[in-house]
Amino acid sequence: MKKQKIINGIDINRLAEIIDVIEKSPDLARFQFRAKNTWMNGGHSRSVIKSFYGGKQEDNTRSEPFILENDQPLIMLGKDKGASPVEYILNALAGCITNSIVYHATLKGIRINDIESELEGNIDLRNLFMKNNEIDNPEDNIKVKIRITGNELQENEKSFLCELGKKTSPVYKVITNAIPVELVVENELDPD
Amino acid sequence: MKKQKIINGIDINRLAEIIDVIEKSPDLARFQFRAKNTWMNGGHSRSVIKSFYGGKQEDNTRSEPFILENDQPLIMLGKDKGASPVEYILNALAGCITNSIVYHATLKGIRINDIESELEGNIDLRNLFMKNNEIDNPEDNIKVKIRITGNELQENEKSFLCELGKKTSPVYKVITNAIPVELVVENELDPD
Repeated sequence: MKKQKIINGIDINRLAEIIDVIEKSPDLARFQFRAKNTWMNGGHSRSVIKSFYGGKQEDNTRSEPFILENDQPLIMLGKDKGASPVEYILNALAGCITNSIVYHATLKGIRINDIESELEGNIDLRNLFMKNNEIDNPEDNIKVKIRITGNELQENEKSFLCELGKKTSPVYKVITNAIPVELVVENELDPD
Repeated sequence: MKKQKIINGIDINRLAEIIDVIEKSPDLARFQFRAKNTWMNGGHSRSVIKSFYGGKQEDNTRSEPFILENDQPLIMLGKDKGASPVEYILNALAGCITNSIVYHATLKGIRINDIESELEGNIDLRNLFMKNNEIDNPEDNIKVKIRITGNELQENEKSFLCELGKKTSPVYKVITNAIPVELVVENELDPD
């Protein structure tokens, strides 16, 4: 095993190794993430997130689950006990693009000082409150402003890294492509 | 103002009023949700979520922001300090479909006892770790199993409510349609 070399909090040799093994065995990159959600009351629901499959195995490294609370703000008749689902989408997109930028910068040996982003999700909620027919929302969109700094980072490298971050981000892909969602009504769910 | 009548934790008269005013003034349903994200280290980033625009005004009912931590699990070289971005997508989808079901059941005067859902996000992460060319992932998909109960709820109403929940969920729409995402590199972001 090669000596540890940490850039941007990532072990660059391990990252390069992972890319090599995925190139040889692409199935290692197939992941299945999971969530269990329970309605609490009104707009409030709670997700428990722990197990996942990846690298050709069930992962058992997490000792505790992550608990996420969804609610709606008061104006939408919620009790504001958690961020709203669309806000969770913005968080996922920010985290995923940022992570992709950091991994690709690390691979190129580029040290990052700061990455900050501001996101706007412009969403027409008429369908949620619809009475009759479904309305198309061609104006729905998400805008991301991103600031990235690094002592050795050239201006053209910033744009290049951000484009690469976008292009390689799984969540960016989920949002900008049409990903199929299958919904099945069941009388019993799997036990834990 | 009509007397309060609470079903499923929602004031049914206020919900009906909202639907009426949106019908007359559709701009009330245009929302802008926002997030600010800061890279911490490695795969770890943090979002701060507070302000939003909706109902033709800036909302100022939240006294404290929601703080969401993104990280990657160990196998992806993260430190597991938060759920991963794809897991946040699953939470958003679960919360949004559940909320849509509850609102539409409430409007019809149907009392719900339980809603539980299990989600799987099957995602190929090769692009995140890509060396050369982008790979299309036609096999990426999300599966949702949902269980809904209510003393007066007929079997055919369960399927009807779940279909309506899906059809009217803004997050379902974001994921299954291709929503444009604009990413701009800036040297300065807006102050708080």
